[in-house]
Amino acid sequence: MRLLKVDTIIEAENKLKKHFEGLEWRTLEIPLHQSVGRYIAEDIYSRENLPGFNRSVVDGYAVRSRETLGAGEASPVFFDLTDSVEMGEIWQGELEEGYATYVATGGMVPKGADSVVMIEHTEKLDDHIIAIHRSVANLEGVMSYDEDISQDQLLYKKGHRIRPVDIGVLAAIGASVVLVFDQPLVSIISTGDEIVSIIEEPIPGKVRDVNSFALAALVQETGCLLGGVYLIEDKAKKLEETLKEALTRSDLLLVSGGSSQGHKDFTEEVINALGKPGVITHGLALKPGKPTILGVIEDTHCSCSARKTLVAGLPGHPVAAIGVYHLLIEPFIRKTFFKCHEEPVQVKGVLMENLAAGEGRETLITVRLEKAKKVYSVYPIHGKSGAVSQLLSGDGYMLIPAGQEGLLEGSVVDVILF
Amino acid sequence: MRLLKVDTIIEAENKLKKHFEGLEWRTLEIPLHQSVGRYIAEDIYSRENLPGFNRSVVDGYAVRSRETLGAGEASPVFFDLTDSVEMGEIWQGELEEGYATYVATGGMVPKGADSVVMIEHTEKLDDHIIAIHRSVANLEGVMSYDEDISQDQLLYKKGHRIRPVDIGVLAAIGASVVLVFDQPLVSIISTGDEIVSIIEEPIPGKVRDVNSFALAALVQETGCLLGGVYLIEDKAKKLEETLKEALTRSDLLLVSGGSSQGHKDFTEEVINALGKPGVITHGLALKPGKPTILGVIEDTHCSCSARKTLVAGLPGHPVAAIGVYHLLIEPFIRKTFFKCHEEPVQVKGVLMENLAAGEGRETLITVRLEKAKKVYSVYPIHGKSGAVSQLLSGDGYMLIPAGQEGLLEGSVVDVILF
Repeated sequence: MRLLKVDTIIEAENKLKKHFEGLEWRTLEIPLHQSVGRYIAEDIYSRENLPGFNRSVVDGYAVRSRETLGAGEASPVFFDLTDSVEMGEIWQGELEEGYATYVATGGMVPKGADSVVMIEHTEKLDDHIIAIHRSVANLEGVMSYDEDISQDQLLYKKGHRIRPVDIGVLAAIGASVVLVFDQPLVSIISTGDEIVSIIEEPIPGKVRDVNSFALAALVQETGCLLGGVYLIEDKAKKLEETLKEALTRSDLLLVSGGSSQGHKDFTEEVINALGKPGVITHGLALKPGKPTILGVIEDTHCSCSARKTLVAGLPGHPVAAIGVYHLLIEPFIRKTFFKCHEEPVQVKGVLMENLAAGEGRETLITVRLEKAKKVYSVYPIHGKSGAVSQLLSGDGYMLIPAGQEGLLEGSVVDVILF
Repeated sequence: MRLLKVDTIIEAENKLKKHFEGLEWRTLEIPLHQSVGRYIAEDIYSRENLPGFNRSVVDGYAVRSRETLGAGEASPVFFDLTDSVEMGEIWQGELEEGYATYVATGGMVPKGADSVVMIEHTEKLDDHIIAIHRSVANLEGVMSYDEDISQDQLLYKKGHRIRPVDIGVLAAIGASVVLVFDQPLVSIISTGDEIVSIIEEPIPGKVRDVNSFALAALVQETGCLLGGVYLIEDKAKKLEETLKEALTRSDLLLVSGGSSQGHKDFTEEVINALGKPGVITHGLALKPGKPTILGVIEDTHCSCSARKTLVAGLPGHPVAAIGVYHLLIEPFIRKTFFKCHEEPVQVKGVLMENLAAGEGRETLITVRLEKAKKVYSVYPIHGKSGAVSQLLSGDGYMLIPAGQEGLLEGSVVDVILF
């Protein structure tokens, strides 16, 4: 029996980083309206000033602010009125001294004017004269032409994942197409002699294929395309054939492990046989999640560029497989393919009971959140290893670091949402 | 000038609830693997027990636990070994007294045995005899046949939005198709004489159409299908024609308001002309977000069922339009069409400065989150009304309730993520 050192999450991450650093990933231009959830592939700078003209942010009268000096409720300043222009039209020429003109919210403030007095502080005496009851400062009621966004301003960094609100910002600067990273093709291989397809009625001893479904949903949520999904028996030869086939048509392979005796050993052998450098991580110092294997296959047939593929063997237990996906595989995909270094927002909460940690390993605990007065209450979900019901009632995970013996009730903890 | 009372968010919600209560919405069955993000349309109960058989959760030897009584490091108990069955196979018959058999993680525990001793606490003396060095309790190392999920257990309530992890749970119980709510068709009408298409170069005075793009992305994120997107000039006749056309082919209409004089009045008139009951909310006590109009049109031509459509007039300013969408329209869609009453997880944080509130109105403030030691720091983003740059650097919103004059630095606040 070989005794191989397991890696901490950080160690495994560093190994992956070393192997995949500098990987250049395909980009493509897509229409703005189809880009939600995609990752931007270049720094985006504004090509223009926004609003592009001095725009009124109130309904009121455009004036020269210094001419309103001293105006008040009891001491109005009077202005001659000149015709206003329609919304969306250009104000030709310059507003003359002593004149005011009506501008609606969003309308253009005429040249010469530098502020807009809200209609509430004015009194139209007749068609030609307006009384202004309040003095205004320079730029009051006005958004100046480059105040919102200025030309050449950095808007988004490469790797940013496009949110619905970003679509609004990108529309505002006229980015009708966006350069984004292509979606890597991820294939999933579910192995296990006890695994049957979900449409089958499992006889005693068999269980349905949970992992390939959950992992398929997760990789798509991360922003990948689903390649092949293979459900195979837990035999070295079958695994080798399937991995070889899947390698030719995938950018990443996830193997969801069988539980048969010797499975881990032959999976490592099969991965090593596929190419160099082969297996780089023989297990994780994570509970649950220990039987995780990371292999890297460099394609030497293709001389044009060194194409490397990660083959990740995940634990057979759904909770462990999904946990390792969230902790290790998803960040890998985001960083390697999408150059995204944004940290997902985590939820803070107060731990509602004492928790013991796994000996010398990081411990991943499924938790349920409950809204309390100030912060969330975090309830650990207890359940035997392999229980899918943890996913049912859980909202996410928390981690106990390896160095800690446990966490006390009342500790503030981070929850990684499912 | 008519002075109409504006509604608080709660008042507007209650009006919507009154008008749309009991609306029955279409459902359909879709394949499990396409169901992420969809809303379940019926309570889902498990049709079977899980795991369905007594399953080992460790690699070890299945025994009768009472026969291990007194076993210890220095005082092993000896068992006869009998052949193990392959993973996924049925253990026929019953394990005889005094016997043990090897079971791998995930394997079936034979009838007769009630626990599995981890391999670490055993010593195989030869092919026929095993020494057990630890006593085990009933069900130790075993997940019993209905321990994870039991038959007829309620798994998901109607209205639950399917997460990637739920796909795993549903696969486990063999739910290869899921009954979900249909996706309502939402059409968006962007009005304004100053608005140009995003592919146009706006001349001074004009701005690009931000709202229809942002709203289209948002309604799809909520789970709707995008119907028509109309960009029209701010004229009553044009608006009426467009709304009439869109009404025939949409389940919800969003009108993103123009800023021209009289726009609000004629929008209300047009909505009232479309049918009864017409406008139910003439404005919101929300800053920004006041120029929000809610109208309800009941289709009386169709005698089979009372089809009601919400026509929501949103403010022209993107930040206000998106804020009202998040606060009012999205919850309406989730509750009315999808019967979803789950509250989205909010992020708590500590406010980093004093904030004044709008007079007598709820105040919506765009904020940026920064990770701090214990909880997030919440930084309000200041910007003139109508600035899209608030969306650029913001992570979400916070609300100051109407009764409060403001919030002090150091207050713990809820952030609704974009």
